[in-house]
Amino acid sequence: MTQLKNKSVIFLKHPTEFPVPGEHFDVQTKDLTVNLNAKDVLLRNLYISQDPYMRGRMRDTDKSYVSGFQIGQPLEGFGVSEVIESKNDDFPVGAVVAGIVSWAEYTVVPGAQGLRAIPDARNPKIPLSSYIGVLGMPGMTAYSSLKIIGKPKAGETIFISAASGAVGQLVGQIAKRQGLRVVGSAGADNKVEYLLKELKFDAVFNYKKGNILENLKAAAPEGIDIYFENVGGETLEAALEVMNTHGRIIACGMISQYNTQAPYGVRNLTHIVGKRITMRGFIVSDFQEECGADFIKDVGSWLVNGEIIYKEDVAVGIENAPDSFVGMLKGKNFGKQVVKIADL
Amino acid sequence: MTQLKNKSVIFLKHPTEFPVPGEHFDVQTKDLTVNLNAKDVLLRNLYISQDPYMRGRMRDTDKSYVSGFQIGQPLEGFGVSEVIESKNDDFPVGAVVAGIVSWAEYTVVPGAQGLRAIPDARNPKIPLSSYIGVLGMPGMTAYSSLKIIGKPKAGETIFISAASGAVGQLVGQIAKRQGLRVVGSAGADNKVEYLLKELKFDAVFNYKKGNILENLKAAAPEGIDIYFENVGGETLEAALEVMNTHGRIIACGMISQYNTQAPYGVRNLTHIVGKRITMRGFIVSDFQEECGADFIKDVGSWLVNGEIIYKEDVAVGIENAPDSFVGMLKGKNFGKQVVKIADL
Repeated sequence: MTQLKNKSVIFLKHPTEFPVPGEHFDVQTKDLTVNLNAKDVLLRNLYISQDPYMRGRMRDTDKSYVSGFQIGQPLEGFGVSEVIESKNDDFPVGAVVAGIVSWAEYTVVPGAQGLRAIPDARNPKIPLSSYIGVLGMPGMTAYSSLKIIGKPKAGETIFISAASGAVGQLVGQIAKRQGLRVVGSAGADNKVEYLLKELKFDAVFNYKKGNILENLKAAAPEGIDIYFENVGGETLEAALEVMNTHGRIIACGMISQYNTQAPYGVRNLTHIVGKRITMRGFIVSDFQEECGADFIKDVGSWLVNGEIIYKEDVAVGIENAPDSFVGMLKGKNFGKQVVKIADL
Repeated sequence: MTQLKNKSVIFLKHPTEFPVPGEHFDVQTKDLTVNLNAKDVLLRNLYISQDPYMRGRMRDTDKSYVSGFQIGQPLEGFGVSEVIESKNDDFPVGAVVAGIVSWAEYTVVPGAQGLRAIPDARNPKIPLSSYIGVLGMPGMTAYSSLKIIGKPKAGETIFISAASGAVGQLVGQIAKRQGLRVVGSAGADNKVEYLLKELKFDAVFNYKKGNILENLKAAAPEGIDIYFENVGGETLEAALEVMNTHGRIIACGMISQYNTQAPYGVRNLTHIVGKRITMRGFIVSDFQEECGADFIKDVGSWLVNGEIIYKEDVAVGIENAPDSFVGMLKGKNFGKQVVKIADL
């Protein structure tokens, strides 16, 4: 039996707009009594992932596609961790793993459920945080949905909103590899420049400057065939307006609509009829069987070979997790948001 | 060479809201000089079809999925006609055909393009108007999109708006045959009663009475798995609200949005993400290859055997075509709207 002080991010109250640290969630130090049963492991968490879908788990509803966070319990999500106590031979002490953990310094994972070992973790070719980013859920989201819903063809044009975010930046690079014209939007000039200069997007605009529809028309004069939807609202309306016949909308997220009680009304859905558009929502597990192995093989090799790059925004310290999460919901992150809790 | 007086419905002006007879289109008598070339036929039109999609052809835009009507020319659409002059051995004088014709008493069809012969037309087992309704484009629309986009499974619930219309009434009957729970909406109490009593829908509400969302929740307490979308706007918003995970929206039409300059803003599209919904627009020709033969075989036999019924609303006389078209756009028709121009 081990007794630990465990600094954790505890969920306090369902927010209706942006969550507020101290009101809706807060960092608290909890006593953790560890008493492992067979197959259990105790993890020391190194990195946790912060993703927009988590806002849905904060809602007071049973309608979300993931179960809600529990009041009084820590938030949870993907993380990279070190095994520091183990009753599981597959995950011995010292092993480094990726899986679902609490937003806390330490997590007990009963039966080591859902964990996967990270190979060569003490001598990595890529940053450990990659396993919750480009090689984790966000990367798989980009890879699989672009393939299965987007059905990209060389010569087509794709438009990606939140294009420098966790998912968008990989979508754009994969689409470039496949011969598409790649258009993006982002909310800051340095992000726009990064997408143009580093990721070689063909056209990018700052959605906070000028009219979104006019900017999109100028960036995609021949229309768009695929819209990778991360934001919703006015941007979706603009995308529908410029979309070509038989266009596909990959409905990955609509972050502009998550933190408001006055959602934007999209007025031009008749284009879905007239232009024969397919719009489809998904979660990444829908595509695991079809794409999971190819994803690891393809993206892993592109990454190791330097054929793709992946920008992360790293907050340091569990204390800063609430602020960095709210910052991400507001678009303040530049690249995939992670929180570093400890060194290996 | 034949000279005819040809009473026709001429397109005059692009409407921005409901088209107005006399302003946007009007009945005019035109001189028709018939001088057939090889393969051409001259038709005497018996029935013409009036369908909501035609409103899209009245728009001043190149974005519609069908080409626009030409100012100064007759409207056109599906019709049933008798061949009265022919230079085409496949369609001799006296043959009865279905195909694209003008809204007029007579139409010359160069090369007899797109015509198909109606078998046993002078001794028909089913009304000739069926070939532009339940056995024509509206029927094929219902049959193919329900199958390909809807992917119905026994035990699921489907919701159909404009449920007594040209497409909805067949969708509902096919879905019942396949073991679904069938919920509909319509805009008049006699339509509601017809759907419940004659077509054996499980639940139907009048969308003009009370709150659409509350009515739909009451009619579909376990949610809906498929939404057959004919109307758009508030009804679509309600359908998204009650839709189950992995729901499918067959985006056939959005008639509530065609005749307004103030379209309804749909505020809950985040459900497409959260519930992993697929929403897809189409036109019937997209599915011809996959479903065309089965459609004729299945629906033809169900119809002849009396296993399905199909209600038509027949306006009589080309003079009444403008008014009946506007009436259909306003939901005044009860069943599939056709105009009878002449007897065989």
